[in-house]
Amino acid sequence: MVGEETMDRSADLMAEYVEVSKNPARKRVIIDTDPGIDDMMAIFMAFEAPGIEVIGLTTIFGNVDIDLATKNALHLCEMTGHPEIPVAEGPSEPLKRVKPRIAYFVHGSDGLGNTFQANPKGQKSSKSAADFLLEKVAEFPGEVTVVALGPLTNIALAIQKDPNFVKNIGQLVVLGGAFNASGNVNPAAEANIFGDPEAADLVFTSGMDTLVIGISLTTQVIFNDQDLSEIRDSGGKYGKYIYDCCRFYHDFHLESDHFDGIFLHDPTCMAALLDPSLFTYRKGAVRVETEGLCVGYTLLDMGLKNWVGKNHWTGVPLIDVGMTVDADGVRSLVKKLLCSP
Amino acid sequence: MVGEETMDRSADLMAEYVEVSKNPARKRVIIDTDPGIDDMMAIFMAFEAPGIEVIGLTTIFGNVDIDLATKNALHLCEMTGHPEIPVAEGPSEPLKRVKPRIAYFVHGSDGLGNTFQANPKGQKSSKSAADFLLEKVAEFPGEVTVVALGPLTNIALAIQKDPNFVKNIGQLVVLGGAFNASGNVNPAAEANIFGDPEAADLVFTSGMDTLVIGISLTTQVIFNDQDLSEIRDSGGKYGKYIYDCCRFYHDFHLESDHFDGIFLHDPTCMAALLDPSLFTYRKGAVRVETEGLCVGYTLLDMGLKNWVGKNHWTGVPLIDVGMTVDADGVRSLVKKLLCSP
Repeated sequence: MVGEETMDRSADLMAEYVEVSKNPARKRVIIDTDPGIDDMMAIFMAFEAPGIEVIGLTTIFGNVDIDLATKNALHLCEMTGHPEIPVAEGPSEPLKRVKPRIAYFVHGSDGLGNTFQANPKGQKSSKSAADFLLEKVAEFPGEVTVVALGPLTNIALAIQKDPNFVKNIGQLVVLGGAFNASGNVNPAAEANIFGDPEAADLVFTSGMDTLVIGISLTTQVIFNDQDLSEIRDSGGKYGKYIYDCCRFYHDFHLESDHFDGIFLHDPTCMAALLDPSLFTYRKGAVRVETEGLCVGYTLLDMGLKNWVGKNHWTGVPLIDVGMTVDADGVRSLVKKLLCSP
Repeated sequence: MVGEETMDRSADLMAEYVEVSKNPARKRVIIDTDPGIDDMMAIFMAFEAPGIEVIGLTTIFGNVDIDLATKNALHLCEMTGHPEIPVAEGPSEPLKRVKPRIAYFVHGSDGLGNTFQANPKGQKSSKSAADFLLEKVAEFPGEVTVVALGPLTNIALAIQKDPNFVKNIGQLVVLGGAFNASGNVNPAAEANIFGDPEAADLVFTSGMDTLVIGISLTTQVIFNDQDLSEIRDSGGKYGKYIYDCCRFYHDFHLESDHFDGIFLHDPTCMAALLDPSLFTYRKGAVRVETEGLCVGYTLLDMGLKNWVGKNHWTGVPLIDVGMTVDADGVRSLVKKLLCSP
């Protein structure tokens, strides 16, 4: 329903898209995503945020397998009236591992809370996700922000294909990791980093301008049933859609974590792009464990101590890691965008 | 000087020792130690604490190599008038690794701040540390507390030799690990656990009644120059000795960590034995990383989440991990004991 309604507006929106493409005041953004219910919310936020021009989606396995990630990305662009936005597909597996478990138990068998949306009409890009990233970053050097909401395989592949990607990208904003905190896949690892730890280690040590928002922050940002009902009843064009998709996600949180609410992982990461002042950060060297019990563990050297001798963090370029979040501020921002009329 | 003075009192103290050995109200304690300046302070505390009967010292590499650890342990017993306390030596290397770096740069080439004390007169026990631990714990089942201030090799060897050690020990109190905090050898690892990660993982997963005090607590407990001068000028019998040994340790902290003070790692652990109410604890499963970048990292599953499926923490017996410390309370307790007349 929502999808068809918004498809009718696509001609107007295409005109608007062409217009804003010429407006350098809007930040050019590529969303690397594995939609996924919280990805869906983050994508809607980006489409509604006035300062953002989404110039493409790249897809990755994670919450869902790669086929479903691409299908859902196309669907989300079309249902929001953005069928012109290219969707470029990533690989089905991480750099060095077999495909990790797919989180159907969190997002439903369709990745959108078992709401079983209609198939998209459009096709994915003929380019791979990594090639698309390389092309866009070369086209607008220093101007493209990539928001990575899944495992970092596509970003790592782009670096491997062309090391210039590291300096041509504007900024990489990552949802991932558990810094001085428990993981969510197991006590050591957060799901996105666990999904491709080798890729994450490659990206975090690459020297790219990188900002990471970990789950010790995103688990502080919660919508409860009342928030979700408010979004449904807001008159916003995606209100009912969001509410319906979130039922399954809500039930998972209730069963798994014993509370009546959902963690806004991806929306919180998108909020860090839209309003960085809602967070505090610390610069430090981050490495990702790729062996042993703690595979996927993200370890930040906070720079509090001068080490005797060298270690695995010595000389690693520093990145920004979110330390605190204004959870109410993020909740308000997310709700405002998701209630857009 | 202090050593000779106190040696004169050894006959009296031997009588006292025999007396207190019959007093079951005093807790029987074996100190597993790599002395080491902060070990020295913790050992002095144990000798001065009214509720404690030290029934032996076992030695381990760590702050110093095993020969020096044993020599210093004998020296500390003799200089405090306890030449009758057995000192049993551990191995020179960890279970599965080459000997780790010895922290001479922290404790001086003699392990006691380059104060170069006279050689001890006594000899080490003919028993190995592990055999001594097994013997004493079998002699007083459920009654012996082992305070482990170095790498956990001796404890692991005792378990490997006789699994009954796990249930016969009263309690194991460990200084080690960095829980949700940075290490002190490198960003991942605390020195004692890094010294023998395989041993630590074996001990922490053994089911032994275990309490662990990590460096996120012990680095909150600091003596500055004024505290050390106060101890020197207290009229306490070890005041000048402690002050002199701590000069080197103090200078290391100043150079390495840019502050005018020393961390009371081992004394804080001893305080947890003497007055557990100075700490708060959480029960959880702890594993130690033995591979990759994060070798020696201690990861506590806080039990905040029900995991989907099994992981490396599933079914691991729970141990107690210190979460907060009353730093002023510990400082007062340490100072009181170290200023004993």
